[in-house]
Amino acid sequence: MSGELAVVGLGPGDERWLTPEANAALARADALYGYVGYLERLPVRPGQARHAFDNREEGARAAAALRHAAQGAHVAIVSGGDPGIFAMAAAVCAEIEAGPASWRSLDVSIIPGVTAMLAVAARVGAPLGHDFCALSLSDNLKPWQLIERRLTAAAQAGFVIALYNPSSQARPWQLGAALDQLRRLLAPTTPVVFGRAVGRPDENVIVTTLAAADAKNADMATLVIVGSPETRVIPRPGRSSLVYTPRAIEAVRA
Amino acid sequence: MSGELAVVGLGPGDERWLTPEANAALARADALYGYVGYLERLPVRPGQARHAFDNREEGARAAAALRHAAQGAHVAIVSGGDPGIFAMAAAVCAEIEAGPASWRSLDVSIIPGVTAMLAVAARVGAPLGHDFCALSLSDNLKPWQLIERRLTAAAQAGFVIALYNPSSQARPWQLGAALDQLRRLLAPTTPVVFGRAVGRPDENVIVTTLAAADAKNADMATLVIVGSPETRVIPRPGRSSLVYTPRAIEAVRA
Repeated sequence: MSGELAVVGLGPGDERWLTPEANAALARADALYGYVGYLERLPVRPGQARHAFDNREEGARAAAALRHAAQGAHVAIVSGGDPGIFAMAAAVCAEIEAGPASWRSLDVSIIPGVTAMLAVAARVGAPLGHDFCALSLSDNLKPWQLIERRLTAAAQAGFVIALYNPSSQARPWQLGAALDQLRRLLAPTTPVVFGRAVGRPDENVIVTTLAAADAKNADMATLVIVGSPETRVIPRPGRSSLVYTPRAIEAVRA
Repeated sequence: MSGELAVVGLGPGDERWLTPEANAALARADALYGYVGYLERLPVRPGQARHAFDNREEGARAAAALRHAAQGAHVAIVSGGDPGIFAMAAAVCAEIEAGPASWRSLDVSIIPGVTAMLAVAARVGAPLGHDFCALSLSDNLKPWQLIERRLTAAAQAGFVIALYNPSSQARPWQLGAALDQLRRLLAPTTPVVFGRAVGRPDENVIVTTLAAADAKNADMATLVIVGSPETRVIPRPGRSSLVYTPRAIEAVRA
């Protein structure tokens, strides 16, 4: 029997966002590997092993799953959101590249999912409706200077900016610094969205402006979207405002 | 009875990527509005009306659906992929902003989906595994000069680049021009992925290099990913290569 590894995107926190393909991959697996917080969201299945890992151990988690698959098992690694966006798929690829040659003959599949920025954007309208970039604010794995350079390039070129990993207990100042930097490049009225735990019972979404945005509103479970000069807010009496970035940009603004 | 409009993401072409939330919204609707190609993918339900539109009529499609919802109906507009990414959610918001005040009191929900770049990335590994941007190459709604400026900014800042709407019969030269521009900024060996009709029976995925990339491989159903200087290719004997962008960037490369 030849082994199989599926890297499965669960979507952000709500089983209504788990695709049928992801569901089938989970049901088929002999063993699940993943961050303990993701495994807890999944139903226990008789005969299916579970290997829970701490949040930071992506490389070890990927290697353990690959070793298990190489023994002939059907293994699934679970990932919140989409596994290809700042998540487990890249970690699995890195372990395959560095690991034994036999890992390159494994049947590896990546199962896409709804990534956090899509769910947060959907809650408020269409802030990612035109050109945008997605940037991780974590400087654990890259220098802060590079993050600054990318923020400047994105803002100056008029991209909407989705910030993953904006803040954590170990990285308390980075989002504040990023917002300060963006305040020097964008108008104070630029819309900013904080989407925390979207799809979960403790969901909290805040629409504010760049001038008023408070980095304290973000933690590890938050995704932040900073608008472009085109991003607009539609007030709605008795309802939350809509935030969107139009599909058309007139020549005069370019 | 108060009206309701759901803007529903179908995912890219395969019902295995249709989320339970999207499925429920489709089942609940009195009427579906959408591009004819998307409506054809959905099961016919007794008592549910269908209003098919041409691909280019986003504004008219959104306005018609809003008028119908304002009469008290449960209306769903369907969108391929995710409705918030170069799709119908922004068109709906624009019509609400420009339309009668009563449209602002409608119950509008956006149902996220798997957007094309996630599905294409999943097919080849994790090319979007680190900072990236998503850019529409269509100059129908923005000046080409702005697209050039954004391509340069993205490439110089080291973002992976996902190109939506790379080519169509009415826009035959744009992708070639964009690739030529990127060849002046990035190494010839930079990995490039063409993902056409991913999830459909005629799916075709090509992994190549920036030097060899041929714009003729793209059409309206294609999404193109151009790697960053960090993006890597892992050859696999007897299997397709994996393409991924590592999560870590060393200080020396920044």
